[in-house]
Amino acid sequence: MDFPSFLTSLATSFLIFMVLMFLFTWLSRKPGNVVVYFPNRILKGVDPLEGGSRTRNPFAWIRECMSSTEKDVINIIEIFHSEQSTSVFPELQSVALTCLFIVLVLGILVLSGIILLPALLPVSATDVNIKSASKNTTSKGTFNDLDKLSIGNVTAKSPRLWAFLVAVYWVSFVTYYLLWKAYNHVSALRAEALMSSEVKPQQFAVLVRDVPAVPKGQTIKKHVDSYFESIYRDEFYRSMVVTNNKEVNKIYKELEGYKKKLAHAEAIYAGSKKGGNGEGTRPTTKTGCLGLFGNKVDSIDYFNKKINELVPKLEAEQKVTLREKQQPSALVFFSSRVTAACAAQSLHAQMVDKWTAIDAPEPRDLLWSNLKIKFFERQLRQYLIYILVALTILFYMIPIGLISAFTTLSNLKKLLPFIKAVVDIGALKTVLEAYLPQIALLVFLAMLPKLLLFLSKVEGIPSESHAIRAASGKYFYFSVLNVFIGVTLSASLFSTFKSIQDHPSSIITVLSDSLPGNATFFVTFVALKFFVGYGLELSRIVPLIIYHLKRKYLCKTEAERKEAWLPGDLSYGTRIPGDLLVITIVFCYSCISPLIIPFGVLYFALGWLILRNQALNVYVPKYESYGRMWPHIFLRVVAALILFQVTMFGYIGSKKFVYAPFLIPLIIISLIFAFICDKKFYRAFCNTALEVASHNLKESPNMEHIYRSYIPKSLCSEKPDEDQFDDALSHVSRTESSV
Amino acid sequence: MDFPSFLTSLATSFLIFMVLMFLFTWLSRKPGNVVVYFPNRILKGVDPLEGGSRTRNPFAWIRECMSSTEKDVINIIEIFHSEQSTSVFPELQSVALTCLFIVLVLGILVLSGIILLPALLPVSATDVNIKSASKNTTSKGTFNDLDKLSIGNVTAKSPRLWAFLVAVYWVSFVTYYLLWKAYNHVSALRAEALMSSEVKPQQFAVLVRDVPAVPKGQTIKKHVDSYFESIYRDEFYRSMVVTNNKEVNKIYKELEGYKKKLAHAEAIYAGSKKGGNGEGTRPTTKTGCLGLFGNKVDSIDYFNKKINELVPKLEAEQKVTLREKQQPSALVFFSSRVTAACAAQSLHAQMVDKWTAIDAPEPRDLLWSNLKIKFFERQLRQYLIYILVALTILFYMIPIGLISAFTTLSNLKKLLPFIKAVVDIGALKTVLEAYLPQIALLVFLAMLPKLLLFLSKVEGIPSESHAIRAASGKYFYFSVLNVFIGVTLSASLFSTFKSIQDHPSSIITVLSDSLPGNATFFVTFVALKFFVGYGLELSRIVPLIIYHLKRKYLCKTEAERKEAWLPGDLSYGTRIPGDLLVITIVFCYSCISPLIIPFGVLYFALGWLILRNQALNVYVPKYESYGRMWPHIFLRVVAALILFQVTMFGYIGSKKFVYAPFLIPLIIISLIFAFICDKKFYRAFCNTALEVASHNLKESPNMEHIYRSYIPKSLCSEKPDEDQFDDALSHVSRTESSV
Repeated sequence: MDFPSFLTSLATSFLIFMVLMFLFTWLSRKPGNVVVYFPNRILKGVDPLEGGSRTRNPFAWIRECMSSTEKDVINIIEIFHSEQSTSVFPELQSVALTCLFIVLVLGILVLSGIILLPALLPVSATDVNIKSASKNTTSKGTFNDLDKLSIGNVTAKSPRLWAFLVAVYWVSFVTYYLLWKAYNHVSALRAEALMSSEVKPQQFAVLVRDVPAVPKGQTIKKHVDSYFESIYRDEFYRSMVVTNNKEVNKIYKELEGYKKKLAHAEAIYAGSKKGGNGEGTRPTTKTGCLGLFGNKVDSIDYFNKKINELVPKLEAEQKVTLREKQQPSALVFFSSRVTAACAAQSLHAQMVDKWTAIDAPEPRDLLWSNLKIKFFERQLRQYLIYILVALTILFYMIPIGLISAFTTLSNLKKLLPFIKAVVDIGALKTVLEAYLPQIALLVFLAMLPKLLLFLSKVEGIPSESHAIRAASGKYFYFSVLNVFIGVTLSASLFSTFKSIQDHPSSIITVLSDSLPGNATFFVTFVALKFFVGYGLELSRIVPLIIYHLKRKYLCKTEAERKEAWLPGDLSYGTRIPGDLLVITIVFCYSCISPLIIPFGVLYFALGWLILRNQALNVYVPKYESYGRMWPHIFLRVVAALILFQVTMFGYIGSKKFVYAPFLIPLIIISLIFAFICDKKFYRAFCNTALEVASHNLKESPNMEHIYRSYIPKSLCSEKPDEDQFDDALSHVSRTESSV
Repeated sequence: MDFPSFLTSLATSFLIFMVLMFLFTWLSRKPGNVVVYFPNRILKGVDPLEGGSRTRNPFAWIRECMSSTEKDVINIIEIFHSEQSTSVFPELQSVALTCLFIVLVLGILVLSGIILLPALLPVSATDVNIKSASKNTTSKGTFNDLDKLSIGNVTAKSPRLWAFLVAVYWVSFVTYYLLWKAYNHVSALRAEALMSSEVKPQQFAVLVRDVPAVPKGQTIKKHVDSYFESIYRDEFYRSMVVTNNKEVNKIYKELEGYKKKLAHAEAIYAGSKKGGNGEGTRPTTKTGCLGLFGNKVDSIDYFNKKINELVPKLEAEQKVTLREKQQPSALVFFSSRVTAACAAQSLHAQMVDKWTAIDAPEPRDLLWSNLKIKFFERQLRQYLIYILVALTILFYMIPIGLISAFTTLSNLKKLLPFIKAVVDIGALKTVLEAYLPQIALLVFLAMLPKLLLFLSKVEGIPSESHAIRAASGKYFYFSVLNVFIGVTLSASLFSTFKSIQDHPSSIITVLSDSLPGNATFFVTFVALKFFVGYGLELSRIVPLIIYHLKRKYLCKTEAERKEAWLPGDLSYGTRIPGDLLVITIVFCYSCISPLIIPFGVLYFALGWLILRNQALNVYVPKYESYGRMWPHIFLRVVAALILFQVTMFGYIGSKKFVYAPFLIPLIIISLIFAFICDKKFYRAFCNTALEVASHNLKESPNMEHIYRSYIPKSLCSEKPDEDQFDDALSHVSRTESSV
């Protein structure tokens, strides 16, 4: 890539971004789009277009983001939630944490850049290596102007390399300092969120798994109750045995589906009444598969009939579920936060694989079907998944290669004869043949986050947010291995494969040899990612189109329309690994080609602005994570830093600089730093510290309310009939009489 | 070593053992020796010679040991303690645990031997390798008769090797099964000891370290009190701040010393009154160093004066210590066992390095001076000690070599001129020159357990028993590395050093090549160890001689005499690693030369008998360990098993047997087995399970008594004056008024 084409690429990306931003300004002004651009505000009941300033100036949103503080981002979401009917008050959820992460990275890059840019650029620019030997840039042609500013322009063994060595130290110590400060800050925020004086149900509950076999003639419910009563006496409130809700959920979902369809049909009927002859035509539906086949019947009558059939079925199933489908797992409620926090950290049974207790996740965060999985089965699943994911990350090209080998056009034609007509068109055939493998790869890459999330859930993790955390960790390793190391090595890999095989340690040398040549590629990569990616995110083109399509053709009722625009949470599981990949790239090139730093700063600055805008206007936070993601982020930033240090050690070493081993102590310092931080902070992110849990509450907790918030919707009876809360849900005092 | 010399060695060992046993029978009959042979019984108040049967038959003690059950060993010690004034009731202490360990090993060896001896001996004996190739036995000469019974006699690639491969599986699965059963059993015993209905002070206390900096104007005591009161409210009883007792202990020790000397002098005076002219001579003493120099004064008057001087000094120092020498560490007492167990497992502060709480050790088990060491300092010390010990284990020959190089006779003569006269004697000179390096090595080996214990204490471990555990673990690694691997390799090491350097993996081949040749060496080693070692232990020759010498020349008072025969506890820290070394050796040779198994069985059977005898008659248990040593023992038995499997894999592989890799799954199974056991049982050995702690007590605990049991003797005032318990010891309610 030469200089003009580099500029062209940058300019194109920037142009796309400007177009998308103006599109955003224009579209967000239209009242019909308000629900897409300001759903958060609407849910909060705030006027989305207040002040009207945003309608005039395309950069007004930036001013607004800049003026809001961290507390705003945290609190606005809190206010929003406290007005909802749910009793959950997130304070340190995914968006706030991502903001903190971006601010941290931004700080590291700005502080590094301030020193590195003025120091390193002149050092490289005034040397003469490029002219005499173009070895390091062969793969990228005649890209002299930018390469002169990189370490590639410094001659081997030159004392100028000292500057780069010191720069690595500078970047590392800046990172240590800011990481330490940030970890401290997040830890304090977590403590604040946990010591909140609001009553949060999950702070009074403990999830107990691996309930041992029940003595004959006793129910699981009674077994759990007597066990915890004997240990905790006064503080024990009651327990809720986990049930297998598969059947009841299915019926409930069917029922809800019919209710929605009924409302939809009624809306159509009402619409047709208004529109036509005042009588209206009653909508009809087909009873068969997907409403496409079978007899035609009157929709409203049919759905009403179905609902009437399902309601008693649901009630019967609810009773069966509560009585007979109890699982060896329970939620145990305590009347004090300290006791709950204690119980979640203490060993209950002499055998560790019995009566295991952990902090209860939020009600909506629970993965009910995973709760019954036994201790050693969880361990086994976890390790199997780890192996599977490691294999996927390392060898994902093999199955994709196989698939593309099998899905050649001639094979496809044999398997699916009906596509023959399409495929035989000349031009299309060429295109398809050329792109089939790439399409397979793209489909795989698009599916990967979902696949990893699925695999993480299979591990037996008890909560959705934990599964997302696990999946995002896996995705980071995939990104770094395949995008960063993959791209860097791919050019030179096959030629040097033999030498790596003979001397495995030479992989560092190969990696660092091919680094400077790829610097411009990654600058373009970062630029494309931020201009186009952020442009798309800000303008919300895709959700907008989907919303308008749905509204026009599918949505008839208010509920359906709301469903169509409801934005959901930040997609945490891919956002964080993506940003971590960028910081890994910027770290590794920060000393080799310091010009990448401004692009990194731009990427994160823009990312911060847009995230704030989305946090204030769009996203609806899903779970209160209490900052549990932070240790993961921390560890991966340190991993990126160590990768950077190792790469620089290899690179400076390959320049035959005898003082390169001065970087080895730095790698050891990084490991010690990670160890100390992990020791000092990590446990408080796993458990609730008692000094935090012992803070006073605003009001004494309404235990009945806390308890009820954990009952799944599908098990809530329509009529508040206390009798049904038998067995799996029943109260202690009543169990003794009724069971 | 040929066959006759092997037999001679065995016979000699056996002869020594028989002599020692008869010596034991003869000496233990003498009434004057009763205190040496039956101190435990005397302390319990049981007639040591009851039944009189032991006086006739030299094997009577064996019958007695056989007839006593495990419960006897555990309970007898319990009864003994409950009659003591201390409120401690050990139930699963070191002796009982060592018994369990020996029974486990015995079971493994007997079950292995039953199959291995009849199966493997014919398989090797009927093959012909030894005659054709004596490669494996070159180093040991013409030892045909025994080598024919070992695997060395099987020809390479022979299908007979299948028998050995299957034998490895048999031994492994026997070990898994019995280890699992034993771990389960010990876990149950630990639970039983912990749920005992007796009130044990350590179950109501928690040791809190890393108390953060105290806010200005507050004492540490008040700080600790308010912190724990705010978290635990009702269950918090009071706290005891740890003080720096170095000064007060010194004065107390001095005072006690003078009190003893006074009693001694009075006894002498009384003796001289009786003996001579009825008047008696008042003993005199010299006031200078060690009582050898200085003015001669009347002993009784002098000691009385000293005591009168020291008593007020001690009282003043006690007050100063309690007020001004408070350390950032405290013992916190709770009124409920469950709360104490909970508190020891829970995270108290948001920062993990503040307010760390662990189960309180027994009062007499506490290492007071270690309690003040801070969190990260402990970590640092631990890793430094680990590195230091690893270096010591690997390279201990280097400093010893250096020392012996410097302590040549000519050097010694220069440094210590006064020994010149002694050294210049011809014969002595030769002997000294020849043996000086060996003497250095022997001194080092004799000092090693003490050195390791010292190093373990330096780690910052809070209790004596924990330090012993840590030291014994280190000693095991030293033994295995140096005795077992060292001896095996030493013969062939130097010749094969080059090949190891080139291919580090060849160390397994080298190890296994030299194994069969050393089998007879280790059989003799085990035999010597058990016959002579156990003989000495049973006959208690050394303590007997020391006791009689002391009684004759030093002891005058009853207390002094009791001190002279008081036997102390089993020396756990060297006994367990020693036995573990033997089981490692027997494991590794069990399939190579199955004849070692009967010797192993004999070793442990005799060890079991003698340990029981000593447990019933001699040892006075020191600490209640609650079986905490077991996970260490378990892990090291598994490590020995894996070493055995790896060795066999290497050995069978060196026989060019293509199915040798069938042993690899076994190694993986061992690792999985260790992982599962560790997961299932280990945590219950670190913490107290709440279901165990919640068992009912016989009586409601006397909190004042529990609290007082933790006050060190040196801080207990002679006059029970409540006022002195100020500051570091004072009660909450009083603190508020008085401080």
